[in-house]
Amino acid sequence: MPALTYTLLREDGDPGSRARLGRVETPHGGFDTPAFMPVGTAASVKGLLPEAVGSIGAQIILSNTYHLLLRPGEELVQRMGGLQKWMRWDGPVLTDSGGYQVFSFADKNSIGDDGVKFRSHLDGREIHLSPERSIAVQNALGADIIMAFDDCPPAPDRPEVVEATALGPRHAVPDAEYQARLAQANDRTARWLARCVKAHQRPADQALFGIVQGGIDLDARRQSVEQVCQHDLPGFAIGGVAVGEGFDQLKRVTEHTAPLLPEDRPRYLMGVGYERDLVTAVRAGVDMFDCVLPTRNARNANAFTPFGQIRLRNARFSEDERVLDAGCDCPACAGGFSRSYLRHLFIAGEMLGGILLSLHNLRHFQRLMLDIRAAIRDNTWSAVGRHWPVTLAEGPGTVRSDGRDLLESDADV
Amino acid sequence: MPALTYTLLREDGDPGSRARLGRVETPHGGFDTPAFMPVGTAASVKGLLPEAVGSIGAQIILSNTYHLLLRPGEELVQRMGGLQKWMRWDGPVLTDSGGYQVFSFADKNSIGDDGVKFRSHLDGREIHLSPERSIAVQNALGADIIMAFDDCPPAPDRPEVVEATALGPRHAVPDAEYQARLAQANDRTARWLARCVKAHQRPADQALFGIVQGGIDLDARRQSVEQVCQHDLPGFAIGGVAVGEGFDQLKRVTEHTAPLLPEDRPRYLMGVGYERDLVTAVRAGVDMFDCVLPTRNARNANAFTPFGQIRLRNARFSEDERVLDAGCDCPACAGGFSRSYLRHLFIAGEMLGGILLSLHNLRHFQRLMLDIRAAIRDNTWSAVGRHWPVTLAEGPGTVRSDGRDLLESDADV
Repeated sequence: MPALTYTLLREDGDPGSRARLGRVETPHGGFDTPAFMPVGTAASVKGLLPEAVGSIGAQIILSNTYHLLLRPGEELVQRMGGLQKWMRWDGPVLTDSGGYQVFSFADKNSIGDDGVKFRSHLDGREIHLSPERSIAVQNALGADIIMAFDDCPPAPDRPEVVEATALGPRHAVPDAEYQARLAQANDRTARWLARCVKAHQRPADQALFGIVQGGIDLDARRQSVEQVCQHDLPGFAIGGVAVGEGFDQLKRVTEHTAPLLPEDRPRYLMGVGYERDLVTAVRAGVDMFDCVLPTRNARNANAFTPFGQIRLRNARFSEDERVLDAGCDCPACAGGFSRSYLRHLFIAGEMLGGILLSLHNLRHFQRLMLDIRAAIRDNTWSAVGRHWPVTLAEGPGTVRSDGRDLLESDADV
Repeated sequence: MPALTYTLLREDGDPGSRARLGRVETPHGGFDTPAFMPVGTAASVKGLLPEAVGSIGAQIILSNTYHLLLRPGEELVQRMGGLQKWMRWDGPVLTDSGGYQVFSFADKNSIGDDGVKFRSHLDGREIHLSPERSIAVQNALGADIIMAFDDCPPAPDRPEVVEATALGPRHAVPDAEYQARLAQANDRTARWLARCVKAHQRPADQALFGIVQGGIDLDARRQSVEQVCQHDLPGFAIGGVAVGEGFDQLKRVTEHTAPLLPEDRPRYLMGVGYERDLVTAVRAGVDMFDCVLPTRNARNANAFTPFGQIRLRNARFSEDERVLDAGCDCPACAGGFSRSYLRHLFIAGEMLGGILLSLHNLRHFQRLMLDIRAAIRDNTWSAVGRHWPVTLAEGPGTVRSDGRDLLESDADV
């Protein structure tokens, strides 16, 4: 029995869609796809008991290797019986490779072909992360799905490059420097993946996913797919999206890349995203997502609704007796907590505000995924658009995985 | 039907105890006494859904008039349907008068016979709190039990005064200044109570409790009881304890004062306390308690156990696979969260640490109250001592209600 099995249950009947209904099984249980994974950075989905995370419908969560490597260290987690047992999450867990966080703090790092040296933001000690080290840490943490250590280049920093690519000829990325960076990243990602595969000590109970890079250059994406998919891995991810390139590029890159990945393996779009991004990526053939948006925005008093986010700190909610979303069955909405009371909790600095909004926002995304899965099964995509106007509208676009770019519009309803 | 009924179910069979088993009924339901009330300062027991507060056994909670008066203001709460509806707590609530908080920040205040003027710590605006205003605010908030606006003097600031009183002749408080302050406080408390009774607009569904003062002077306590109990009120409280006087004085004052209060009304010892304080006061005839200790210490990573508190930040717990208390049925202990994981949550600054410890600490106190009620019912006090050694030991003493004085000893087990 392999560490992970993927069963493709149904392909979308909508001719304009490549969406897939599926089921993934892991040693800690299964999850339905397309799936949205809440983020539990430091082995905790912030503010929520694991039981509550499960009760709002999450079947798999993500945890961050970078954070756990620094604190408490992977060896402690291993001695305590591994991530799932230690954090009392009775389901599948995915860990990232730590590479993304390290590259996000690039000014602190020296990046070379052998990996990355960086200083811990906690105590300043120097840490070396390489393909071998990332896999060793992930082997020790013991997640059901682990990720290859890759080189993730940022989006082009000149907006005109992004625009020209989106509007111009299909393959044009008129920026030699960016092209060179993509080539380097593809090359490293391919060589590092081979080292990850070789270093992986627990293939029987941990599924290693490869990650495709290539930025917003579709030829580079195709080349990366060819390189990464040479390895017979149980799943593949599309990395290097939601790094600042915007919705149009996310759509263009995902629609190009997802169909190139093996049909019989789950496809994971890393760090995505807003509701419209999810629907777009699902229809491109993506099966798995993770994002900090629901929980991070919750702690910032931003609640998701089918019509867009509402900023609860706004004074207009001070005597609003309505729940966040009358159609929602989360503990905040079903429990009858008014916007008035929720606003008070944030204004007064009460933890319960972030807790109730985290439950609500996570349930919002799980309910969207339920409707998306129903749409694939029953060919009811039009109902998704009707029930979730936010998936159709010119919305807030994508969010950076590091969360620096929060909502840009405010669809207060 | 009055706003509150008290049924005395059983008096303790232990000849050394005046403990009482009872039941209080209010418009929002009943609670068993002796009862411990978790504190939900700003209409939220910090970090916990009301459902969770109920599930760990709390039947009544306390909320603070001072905080709600300042933010969001009592009129907003009233327009939203009152405290219980607004915060979704489906049970009895008690509000204090706001006086204690105001007097605690005495340097900001001008205190006179007409009440207290103080500046909001939030926006600096001047606020006047008087008997009439306190009752009007509490009438608007709508708690089931409301408290009289009293004058609560601090403990003598010279330790030798406290010591002399404890060790010397029964009535000796060798400090004329303190004596004068007690006389003034008794006088004001009595006159203000008459004004509170007159101002109270909702006697049919809100039970107003009078508060006895008198510091550590037993004659002053007796005088205050006589003054306060002239009013035929549904319950009475002992105020001015746990203000820094220490366990010996708390015991002395409570054992003197509680039996002077009417037998057919609930007796409430305000702001108390540690486990030993509770057992001592119950055996003196007290029925109700409130304290911030369980939740505040939880957020400071201090967990209560029957053997004393443990400080989870201590490195010795980093790989401790045990739960906090093997005999506890709270979500943290029954859920199998190890001290190792809980410590990690605090070290990593994760909200879940404070949440799990709040659940545990509140359940700890509710379990103690369950055992205390069983001891009164079945005359099993010796079992209380066996199961809760912390109630016998020279412990950390009492805590100031303002929480500045946290645990002093550390019974790490």
